[in-house]
Amino acid sequence: MDHSETPLKDLTIDNITDNVNAINSECDDPRMKFLFERLVTHLHDFARETRLSTSEWESAIRFLTQVGQICSDVRQEFILLSDVLGLSLLVDSIDHPKPPASTEGTVLGPFHTHDAKHLDNGALISHDPDGQPMLVVCSVKDTSGRPIPGVKVDVWETDSKGFYDVQHAGRTDPDGRAVVESDEAGLFYFKAIVPVPYPIPSDGPVGKLLKKLHRHPFRPSHFHFMFDKPGYDRLIT
Amino acid sequence: MDHSETPLKDLTIDNITDNVNAINSECDDPRMKFLFERLVTHLHDFARETRLSTSEWESAIRFLTQVGQICSDVRQEFILLSDVLGLSLLVDSIDHPKPPASTEGTVLGPFHTHDAKHLDNGALISHDPDGQPMLVVCSVKDTSGRPIPGVKVDVWETDSKGFYDVQHAGRTDPDGRAVVESDEAGLFYFKAIVPVPYPIPSDGPVGKLLKKLHRHPFRPSHFHFMFDKPGYDRLIT
Repeated sequence: MDHSETPLKDLTIDNITDNVNAINSECDDPRMKFLFERLVTHLHDFARETRLSTSEWESAIRFLTQVGQICSDVRQEFILLSDVLGLSLLVDSIDHPKPPASTEGTVLGPFHTHDAKHLDNGALISHDPDGQPMLVVCSVKDTSGRPIPGVKVDVWETDSKGFYDVQHAGRTDPDGRAVVESDEAGLFYFKAIVPVPYPIPSDGPVGKLLKKLHRHPFRPSHFHFMFDKPGYDRLIT
Repeated sequence: MDHSETPLKDLTIDNITDNVNAINSECDDPRMKFLFERLVTHLHDFARETRLSTSEWESAIRFLTQVGQICSDVRQEFILLSDVLGLSLLVDSIDHPKPPASTEGTVLGPFHTHDAKHLDNGALISHDPDGQPMLVVCSVKDTSGRPIPGVKVDVWETDSKGFYDVQHAGRTDPDGRAVVESDEAGLFYFKAIVPVPYPIPSDGPVGKLLKKLHRHPFRPSHFHFMFDKPGYDRLIT
């Protein structure tokens, strides 16, 4: 490999970024080369701007190592970190841009399943006896405000304790979820329970980080919706 | 917690950074608050500038998880990644700034030990029979070019195969390392072997990354030096 163009011998605070980018410029994947050029530049700018100290750098190394080490088949702490830093939602917005007057999307989340029953409008979707009953009536409209009939709507929510059915050992039938369809007026409706706030996993390094930032781990109470109709973009919100 | 100042409901590509920074502004450690404000801003700017895709984001999550999971008591893959991205050296330059006309420092590295023998100038420091013999003569000068006597110089190098003594199971006495002292003329000298290039650990995720970037894992052949004298800043190079 010929680095004859880039023999920067005495690395300094000011030339190290160019030097790393020059070394990485041998990469023959132009997209990867671009991503690393921007990554190194931002990372170095961050360190220079903040005068990042060795002990802060050591804390970061320790933190990232712990984040990786708590990850398992059923837990993805790096995604949690990405969520907490607002990166997940930003990437989703960039990758699935929405026209004006449309509902912003969000990421699918880990608790969607493909076994929800198809129910008629008005059906009961949650059977938790401790939940507070609620009738949910919604309408699906296009960006000009015209109702859209025949939209399949996947909806899911937690039980009254903040747990999805799949989080219970010994789950047999799906509960707290269903697929309904919008009628001729673009309306769909179902009986459910009032959603409750529930926390993201907070016993790991990201949970400790939230505490240091004086942030709480609770998500606002919410339903998940996924809208599907042939010829339309899928919306998850 | 009162977020009444920051109820940004419809998150968009353009307002999400301000929103995350507003949530993090509850942090009562001003340094941490500043670091996160700059971190989130750079991270989001990076994603926006590169139009980072969901699949690229997923690759990054997978990569960082693998980096964390290969870390152990004797291997720190996140430090390796930081080295490869030029961040380690940059942070060292920021934290240990050097006046003009002085030798740039570097990080200590993992193979320094505290048991090197104090030897007289001219002594043999490496006993590897396969190494190519070499006489090393150096001088220590201040930034005005005046010799500095009485500087303790910790020096260490690999054997002819590229391994430090501590990397050999059953190591008894230190080899390839010594502490010498500069004489009245600021000179120190010792007999050693010609250093060989050796690779950083390349069987993990960072090794695979280097391959994709068309970079090789070899460090140039080198000696490590650590200079110490009361009243002077320590220099590792």
